[in-house]
Amino acid sequence: MSPEDIARTRLRPRRMGIDSHSEPVAFLRADCHVCRSEGFEAQSRVTITIGDKSVVATLNIVYSDILGKGDVGLSEAAWKRLDIDDGELAVLTHSPSLDSMSHVRSKLYGHRLSREGMNEIVTDVVAGRYGDIQLAALLTACAGNRLDLSEITWLTKAMVDAGHRIDWGRDKIMDKHCLGGLPGNRTTPIVVSIAAACGLTIPKTSSRAITSPAGTADTMETMTRVTLTLDEMRRVVEKENACLVWGGSVSLSPADDILIRVERALDIDSEGQMVASVLSKKAAAGSTHVLIDIPVGPTAKVRGRQAADHLAHLLRKVGEALGMEVRTIQTDGTQPIGVGVGPALEALDVLAVLRNQSGAPADLRERALLVAGELLELGGIAPHGKGSRLAREALLSGRAGEKFIAICEAQGGFREPVLASSSRAIAAPRNGIVTHINNRLVSRLAKLAGAPGAPGAGLRLAVHLGDRIERGAPLFELFADSPGELAYALEFHEAHPDMITVEEESV
Amino acid sequence: MSPEDIARTRLRPRRMGIDSHSEPVAFLRADCHVCRSEGFEAQSRVTITIGDKSVVATLNIVYSDILGKGDVGLSEAAWKRLDIDDGELAVLTHSPSLDSMSHVRSKLYGHRLSREGMNEIVTDVVAGRYGDIQLAALLTACAGNRLDLSEITWLTKAMVDAGHRIDWGRDKIMDKHCLGGLPGNRTTPIVVSIAAACGLTIPKTSSRAITSPAGTADTMETMTRVTLTLDEMRRVVEKENACLVWGGSVSLSPADDILIRVERALDIDSEGQMVASVLSKKAAAGSTHVLIDIPVGPTAKVRGRQAADHLAHLLRKVGEALGMEVRTIQTDGTQPIGVGVGPALEALDVLAVLRNQSGAPADLRERALLVAGELLELGGIAPHGKGSRLAREALLSGRAGEKFIAICEAQGGFREPVLASSSRAIAAPRNGIVTHINNRLVSRLAKLAGAPGAPGAGLRLAVHLGDRIERGAPLFELFADSPGELAYALEFHEAHPDMITVEEESV
Repeated sequence: MSPEDIARTRLRPRRMGIDSHSEPVAFLRADCHVCRSEGFEAQSRVTITIGDKSVVATLNIVYSDILGKGDVGLSEAAWKRLDIDDGELAVLTHSPSLDSMSHVRSKLYGHRLSREGMNEIVTDVVAGRYGDIQLAALLTACAGNRLDLSEITWLTKAMVDAGHRIDWGRDKIMDKHCLGGLPGNRTTPIVVSIAAACGLTIPKTSSRAITSPAGTADTMETMTRVTLTLDEMRRVVEKENACLVWGGSVSLSPADDILIRVERALDIDSEGQMVASVLSKKAAAGSTHVLIDIPVGPTAKVRGRQAADHLAHLLRKVGEALGMEVRTIQTDGTQPIGVGVGPALEALDVLAVLRNQSGAPADLRERALLVAGELLELGGIAPHGKGSRLAREALLSGRAGEKFIAICEAQGGFREPVLASSSRAIAAPRNGIVTHINNRLVSRLAKLAGAPGAPGAGLRLAVHLGDRIERGAPLFELFADSPGELAYALEFHEAHPDMITVEEESV
Repeated sequence: MSPEDIARTRLRPRRMGIDSHSEPVAFLRADCHVCRSEGFEAQSRVTITIGDKSVVATLNIVYSDILGKGDVGLSEAAWKRLDIDDGELAVLTHSPSLDSMSHVRSKLYGHRLSREGMNEIVTDVVAGRYGDIQLAALLTACAGNRLDLSEITWLTKAMVDAGHRIDWGRDKIMDKHCLGGLPGNRTTPIVVSIAAACGLTIPKTSSRAITSPAGTADTMETMTRVTLTLDEMRRVVEKENACLVWGGSVSLSPADDILIRVERALDIDSEGQMVASVLSKKAAAGSTHVLIDIPVGPTAKVRGRQAADHLAHLLRKVGEALGMEVRTIQTDGTQPIGVGVGPALEALDVLAVLRNQSGAPADLRERALLVAGELLELGGIAPHGKGSRLAREALLSGRAGEKFIAICEAQGGFREPVLASSSRAIAAPRNGIVTHINNRLVSRLAKLAGAPGAPGAGLRLAVHLGDRIERGAPLFELFADSPGELAYALEFHEAHPDMITVEEESV
């Protein structure tokens, strides 16, 4: 491009306040000189350069006055990546062709992806050069169990190399992960507390809710601070052997963050992608010993024993190639765990277990002890078959509960979770037996009540499957921040009375 | 949804004037009550319903004042599909899950797509229920020659059934198609004129330029009207046995229009998709006998003999299943055809051949005669091996030229193409031989000069590969609508002097 061209294409960046999710979008007036002279069209891939920063974006053409002629509008994702100072001007150019897509095409024709090919693809993904269409093609080309063990290993390594890898300066770093979240399955704070109380090092990073009413990070945030810098995490772990923080602030496996969003939109189960996603985050977090809980059930992510066995094999082998010891357990994935749904409500379940309260959900406690027991054995603290008993001792003695509070204090202070101020109990419409709980509607109702944005909102189940209940007794209690929001959620419930099915007993 | 819900979610539709290409986008304020109560997020798939019309769109969340709180903003594609009357209000709901994606997932796991599965997929695609991400996954799942002959046949039939199929009320309807356009390869008007002059019925629909400086419809539009209704097309064909119109106004194979856009962005060569694309449009156009020209060359769409043979086999077989006789010819795809690049400039090449002018491009004439000859044989007008001679007689006698004018008159009147008013000849920088012409830069320069938007703009090559040329003699002539645009295009050329390479002869 000649110097004249460059001068001609300088545009004023303008924040449009449009959230197009993580794909950056640029907006340009159709009658803007750059649009014609560069031959830009709607959906062109353009590179926006400001100073030494640049971002690749998809172009939308504007025919109205929401944008000036000399402006380039930027979506939130584009704006944040460019980090613009006052008065800086932008240059727009056609994005160069995406050479690594040739590896994706080659994979489509049945050729194996090479280590170099995988590296080039992941580098381009992390640099934001793949648009949603290209990401979807990449994921589809690798789905259907088309990646073999070495391809999955290379993919995982490339994803680890594309980000930051934490070194804790200790030999044995424990981690745990659960594949395919069951509603309310909030074992992590309990398991981490038990493991740390028994002397293991377990710096746990968790995600926030994406489509559910609460993620582990949301639940933890009702009790302590979870947005810690890496240095702050280090200090907590040095003191307490563990932390329970949000993983988003330390940017582990940035490639995974990009891929997982499109994968979710496609709803494609890709075994290789799942293994790479989980293990790249664990390796980046510096873990050396990882326990993976695989819930198996007809509505869980893994539906049968055979698929679980194969997945477990891949996880162990790829983990080994990355220098991690990975152990897997298969657990019951047929029904929800605990009674609370929503950040504070789930936190109360966790605290009830850690405090050994009489009303604590037994299913949550037993699941946590099972996972913690395996982790203690993996970490060499308990001999084979003795982990679960050691875990129970740590919990019942109160040591796990103390450790949990100590971790929270180290992260900035512990506080009791606070429920939303408006609540209403919903009564059973008839005498009978609870025959069905629609988990999808449970989650939807908790979100309509405000979770996870309103951390105290959500619902608490008063019944389990198979419970006998009398007309007028509570089925569940709903929590929201205001009577209006409560009313709106209740209106939804009245339109969907089949969330919890109570059937009359046949005589 | 309860009646209260529906009342609550009524929003004022607002045209945003944003062209996001054909994927509909909806814009909603983050603080709009619908956004929270429905749990909408950026990139949610939503259904916008107004009266009895609806469209599925991808959601963007707005944090600025470019939109009011009770408004739903609509991109151009969404606005046009809804065709909104004054005062009508919109209801936004979550789009139902896309059940036909289960067939795509099944294909990923190596299962064959059933006829019913293919129909469900294509129905959803045409209804706009597939977003770009889902379309990319569909195309990727079917790429890499993963569709067998019956799957391609079902896909093609489903695409035909999803649109309108024209019945001409005649036994034999001819058509021709060229795979992988070479620059300047504007044989269609010549071939159609020859075929119709010899008595064949050939109602030809063509596309406009998408990424090139001219499509056949753009070229025809410099000489006559090309936007005809189906009834108008019928009257022209009844009178002259042929027409030369833009296919976009009769909406043949709407599924193809949607798929081809994403396929282009992915740059994935999908043999099955290509066959379905071409033949669904031909079947929808009511064709019974189709000649397909397959240019073969290292930079053409089809690179080698073997691939061309396989493609020809699929085209014939699928055509047969759709009740069409398909014949293929393989032609030289190694270099451009003719001298003009741009709508009017290519029209002048066409007219020069049809008028038997002494300076007419011989390569364009010979290519047109080859294709026309095959078409005459396929149509049963000429015995095997005699078609080309009959075609030449029709051309040299002036009958083809007369037929072309008659077709134009029937479409609304013939006019001479008009070149842009500003022109400049570019001279050779040295004595030497033309060793290379960069087709990509030729197309880019023609577009910068204004083609196809300015139909008289573009360039005319004065040299061919291998020509000996003297310093100062013209390499090409550039045409634009104003001296300013000419100057801008010339500036680009000066920055890219390697468009035509002239090398000194070694002694």
